Amino acid sequence: MVQKGDYILLEYTVTSKDDGKVVETTVEDTAKQANIYNPDEVYGPRLIIVGETKLFEPLEQALLATDEGGEVNVEVPPDKAFGERDQGKVKTLSIREFYKYGKIPKPGDVVEMDGQQARVISISSGRAILDFNHPLAGKTLLIKGRIVKKLVTDEEKAKQIVKIYLPRVEGGDVEVSVDKAAKSVTVKLPPSTLFIDKIGNVKLRIAEDLAEKFGAEKVQFIEEITIKREEQKEEGGGQPQQEQAQAQQQEGGVQSAQA
Amino acid sequence: MVQKGDYILLEYTVTSKDDGKVVETTVEDTAKQANIYNPDEVYGPRLIIVGETKLFEPLEQALLATDEGGEVNVEVPPDKAFGERDQGKVKTLSIREFYKYGKIPKPGDVVEMDGQQARVISISSGRAILDFNHPLAGKTLLIKGRIVKKLVTDEEKAKQIVKIYLPRVEGGDVEVSVDKAAKSVTVKLPPSTLFIDKIGNVKLRIAEDLAEKFGAEKVQFIEEITIKREEQKEEGGGQPQQEQAQAQQQEGGVQSAQA
Repeated sequence: MVQKGDYILLEYTVTSKDDGKVVETTVEDTAKQANIYNPDEVYGPRLIIVGETKLFEPLEQALLATDEGGEVNVEVPPDKAFGERDQGKVKTLSIREFYKYGKIPKPGDVVEMDGQQARVISISSGRAILDFNHPLAGKTLLIKGRIVKKLVTDEEKAKQIVKIYLPRVEGGDVEVSVDKAAKSVTVKLPPSTLFIDKIGNVKLRIAEDLAEKFGAEKVQFIEEITIKREEQKEEGGGQPQQEQAQAQQQEGGVQSAQA
Repeated sequence: MVQKGDYILLEYTVTSKDDGKVVETTVEDTAKQANIYNPDEVYGPRLIIVGETKLFEPLEQALLATDEGGEVNVEVPPDKAFGERDQGKVKTLSIREFYKYGKIPKPGDVVEMDGQQARVISISSGRAILDFNHPLAGKTLLIKGRIVKKLVTDEEKAKQIVKIYLPRVEGGDVEVSVDKAAKSVTVKLPPSTLFIDKIGNVKLRIAEDLAEKFGAEKVQFIEEITIKREEQKEEGGGQPQQEQAQAQQQEGGVQSAQA
């Protein structure tokens, strides 16, 4: 049985009970069939740390009664999901309010007003009716899930934590070792991660998370760059860099008085 | 004696012979005294790979006749420095040419025209006289230098190469080991480098340079982040990150249909 504190990989699909529409899924094919496929999303089972990852309570209860390989089928009523619909959150606004956004929305659009999202219900005679309720408010959700894997070793667990922050990096390209005695974790990342924007901040967040979860005080990151000499010469990939370094040194050698 | 291929750290000051003005120096105090101190520059002896780093020929010859700790005093005539002055590079332009730059330059300003720098000699009656000669063209240079250190070990050499690309990182914070048998170099960088913009590109250039100079095929970079638990709790530095990760997971748990 799954216990609190267990690390599991969960595959799941959430549908809205009343219309049977898929509202979210970790399964790429299901997303495509339901026409909610998002190329920016990374599909595949998701890491859940049971009792720590915030889940709808009926889902958490169901997981605690299941084991690796097992399936869960859960019905989540609105009060345990996104709350009941609140008619007070349906508001009428003057269309002039929208002028600052530069364009007039159409019914069905999602707009942001004062940091809150709202759906445009209708537009007529200079007024817009907006619904500030969460789109899933009032809906009963059906969650069908499968515990694909229960993670056992610290290495498996740490690797999945790294994956939260670097979802696009292939799991097979990340190597993690946890040394509890030395209170240290070592994360080897593929060279492709070198070019991720603000990778330093991502590493810092990974380090803080791993330190928290494994009681580590040191988190080491390693990237190994392999230099292919033949290619270098053919493509001139390395040589210009080398010349550039020399050029810098020479400039330094006697710098123009204009500088 | 210094030989071709030697790695030396050279401290130097370049003056213009005719007016005795310091045009460049690696010595911070000298730069300040000469009023050419630039806070963006990193002062201190510079790595020269003799025979590889492009130097004015008389300077290179002098270095080859000196040893660690020794001084050089070299006079470099214009033809071996920035060339003779070319009166043909002094050009008269209509002041209207400058309108596209949005402001009219003053005499003494350095402007860039078609990728070439020029000094403004004079401005009068709708015309500007520009000098496209290098500001040190026609000048004889005096170079006074001192070989502060001759680098012996691969580690010292590699560390100084890293320093070319990361001049602001304290040398003491960088650890380099070169394993020629394994054709690999390992560079340990301080965590401060995590936040350098485009650090991945810098690492790649370092890797290519080290691979070239030490015949390495693999260059490994390591950063070690130390997590201070007490500080974390007081400042809440680590905790919010943790919560953020959970929030991401929860969002993933049931994502809004608006997304």
